[in-house]
Amino acid sequence: MNTIEAGRRTPADSLQGVVSALFEAAGTSAPDASLAADALVCADVRGVRTHGVGNLAPRYLEWLGNGLINPKPQWRITRGSASLINVDGDGGLGVVVAAQVMDAVIERAKQTGLCMATVHNSRHLGMAAFHAMRALPHEMIGVCTTAVRARMVPTFGREPRLGTNPIAVAVPTGEMPAFVFDAAMTTVASNVLRMAMVRNQTVAPGLVVGEDGGPVREPHVPQEPFRLTPLGGTPEGSSHKGYGLAAVVDILSSILSQARSSGTFSAGEGAHCLVAIDIDAVLPVSDFRQAMDEFLQGLGDTPCAPGYDEVLFAGEREHRAAQRNLRDGVLLDPQTLDWLESSASEIGLDDPFHTRR
Amino acid sequence: MNTIEAGRRTPADSLQGVVSALFEAAGTSAPDASLAADALVCADVRGVRTHGVGNLAPRYLEWLGNGLINPKPQWRITRGSASLINVDGDGGLGVVVAAQVMDAVIERAKQTGLCMATVHNSRHLGMAAFHAMRALPHEMIGVCTTAVRARMVPTFGREPRLGTNPIAVAVPTGEMPAFVFDAAMTTVASNVLRMAMVRNQTVAPGLVVGEDGGPVREPHVPQEPFRLTPLGGTPEGSSHKGYGLAAVVDILSSILSQARSSGTFSAGEGAHCLVAIDIDAVLPVSDFRQAMDEFLQGLGDTPCAPGYDEVLFAGEREHRAAQRNLRDGVLLDPQTLDWLESSASEIGLDDPFHTRR
Repeated sequence: MNTIEAGRRTPADSLQGVVSALFEAAGTSAPDASLAADALVCADVRGVRTHGVGNLAPRYLEWLGNGLINPKPQWRITRGSASLINVDGDGGLGVVVAAQVMDAVIERAKQTGLCMATVHNSRHLGMAAFHAMRALPHEMIGVCTTAVRARMVPTFGREPRLGTNPIAVAVPTGEMPAFVFDAAMTTVASNVLRMAMVRNQTVAPGLVVGEDGGPVREPHVPQEPFRLTPLGGTPEGSSHKGYGLAAVVDILSSILSQARSSGTFSAGEGAHCLVAIDIDAVLPVSDFRQAMDEFLQGLGDTPCAPGYDEVLFAGEREHRAAQRNLRDGVLLDPQTLDWLESSASEIGLDDPFHTRR
Repeated sequence: MNTIEAGRRTPADSLQGVVSALFEAAGTSAPDASLAADALVCADVRGVRTHGVGNLAPRYLEWLGNGLINPKPQWRITRGSASLINVDGDGGLGVVVAAQVMDAVIERAKQTGLCMATVHNSRHLGMAAFHAMRALPHEMIGVCTTAVRARMVPTFGREPRLGTNPIAVAVPTGEMPAFVFDAAMTTVASNVLRMAMVRNQTVAPGLVVGEDGGPVREPHVPQEPFRLTPLGGTPEGSSHKGYGLAAVVDILSSILSQARSSGTFSAGEGAHCLVAIDIDAVLPVSDFRQAMDEFLQGLGDTPCAPGYDEVLFAGEREHRAAQRNLRDGVLLDPQTLDWLESSASEIGLDDPFHTRR
C-alpha cells in the first residue's frame, strides 16, 4: 500500500514549500504551516505514504476550512508537575501541536531526566514517529502515542470501541540508522485500508471484522466503516494483547488528559501522549549508542527463515526509503500531483514544481 | 494452561507463610522472603499459574541454592536524575528487587509526577503485573517491563534473538476492578509452553517457529529450546509489531540500564523498567476514576461476536479468579502440593497446611 506504480519524483524541499504555502493560505501562521509541511513530507520521505501529503493534506486543509481545526491555536499547560504535564491543544493541527509539545517535553526532560505530556483537544497528528524522532538530536528516546476515533473491534466483540491507537518509539544509535518503531495496535493501520479503498485495491484476509462480527477471510476491497482487528488478529492469535495495548494508549493519551476515551471522539479528533527520556541521566550516551549498534547488528545477523533474505529492525526500511527519496526526490502519484497543482493554482502558485519549461 | 484438573484448595495466607519460610530457609531476609512469597502467591490468586508458586518457586530456590541469585542483595542507584534512575539489582531475586524499586519509583513520582527506573543485574521478576499493581494504592498508573533470555524469533528470522519481554500496565478505577494489562510480546508466554511441556500437553499451531524457521502449523507438545513467534504470529499478521515492541522493552529495560541487550543473558537473568505516573499531577483523581469506569463499562457493553458471550477488559478475568481464590483458597495441583510438603518437611515444617488430623 505504500508503493505506487506511476508518478513523478519531486524534491522534498520543493514539496515542503508548496505544502507550507497551502497551510499558510488556510490560515495557519508561517511557522506552523512550515512545521505541518515538515511532518507530512517527512512521512513521504520515509516512504510512509499513508501519512504523507497525498493522503492527509487534503483532509487537514478541509478541516481548517470548515472550522474543525483551529488555524491559530494557543496550546497551554492546564495542570502539571515537573515531569508530567496536561496540555490543552486548543483544537489546533495535531501535527503542529504534538511537535511543539514534544519540544517542550524535551526541554523539561533535560532538567529531570524524564518528562511526559498528555494532550487533549488536539487533532490528528499524522505519522507518530515524526514527533518521537524529535528527541533524537537531543540524545533522548522519544515516545509518541495517540488515541483516535474508534475503528478497533475488541476481542470477542463485533463493533469498534477503540482507535487504531499507534505507538511510536525513536531511539538514538551510533553508526546504525535510528531505531524507529511506529505501529497501530490494530493488525493494520486504517490509512492502509483507506488508500486501498480509494484506489479500489484488495487487502489480505484477517485484517477486519465483518458485520456479523467474524473476521473477513477473503481478499477484498475494504469499505468504511472499517472494523479493524487488534494486533494478534484472532483470539487464538492473542488479539487480546493488541486490544489491551490499544486500551493503554487510550488511557495515557486521552483518559489521563481529559477524563474520556477515544470512543467518544468525532472524526479528526486526537489526544496524545508524548515522552522524552534523557539517556545521559542513567548511562553515558556513547555507551548507549554503541550498545544500540550491537543490538541492531545482532538482529540483522539473525539467520533468515526460508523465503526471506534479511531480518530488519524497526525503522530500517523507512531509513532506506529516506536515503533514496532525499537524493532522488519524493515519488508522488498522479492524483496527488494533480491535487497539489490545482490547489497551488487556487492560491496563485502556478507551476509550483517548475515542470513547465 | 492456567486451569488444572485436580488438586486441593489452600488458603492464600497459609500458602504465603509456607513459601515465605522456604525462601527464608534459602538465605533471604525475612522481609524479602515474605515479599517473594507475596509475588508468587499473588499470581496464583489471580489464576496466573504460569507465574505462581508451582512453576517458579522451585526454580528461584534452586538458583538461590546454586548462587545464581544473591540471597542478600543491596540494590543501589548507580546514576540518575529526579525522575529517571538506573538501579543495580545486585543479583537479587527479581521479584523482590523489582517490587522494592517500584516502591522507590512511586515515592519519587509523588514529587515530580512521574518517575522511571531502569534496572540491571537483576533476575526473573515473576508476574510483571505484581510490580505495576503496587502503584494502584497510591492512585498512580504503574508500568513494568522486563527483558529476559532470548526466546523470540524476529520477523523473517529463524533463531531467537529477543526475550518474551512482557509489558504490564496497572491503572486505578472507581467501582470497576483495576485495569491490569500483562502480556508477553510473543504470541504466547514461554511459561505457557513450559507448563505444557512438563505436563505433556499439546498447544495450538502458530505459536512457535520450527528448526527450519517456519511456524509449526500442527498442535504439538512444545520442546525446548522454545522459538516463539512475535505477537502477530506471521509477517502477514504484522508480527513485525510484536517484534518491534519486544525490542522497545529490551531497550528500556536492559540497554538503557547496562548497555547490552537480552540477547546476551543467561538463564534467569533479568533487567527491568518500572514507571509510576501520578494521576493527580494532571487530573483530579476522582474524574479519572469515573472516566475509567465508563471506559471499561463501554468495552464490556460491546455487542459480542458469534460464539462469545462477553467482552472482557485486561485484568477482568484475573480479578474474578482472585475473588474466588481469596474466598475458597488457591487451587494447587498435586505436583505442587507434593513439592511444597516435601520442601517444608526438609526445613522442619511438617504438615505445613494442617491437613493431617
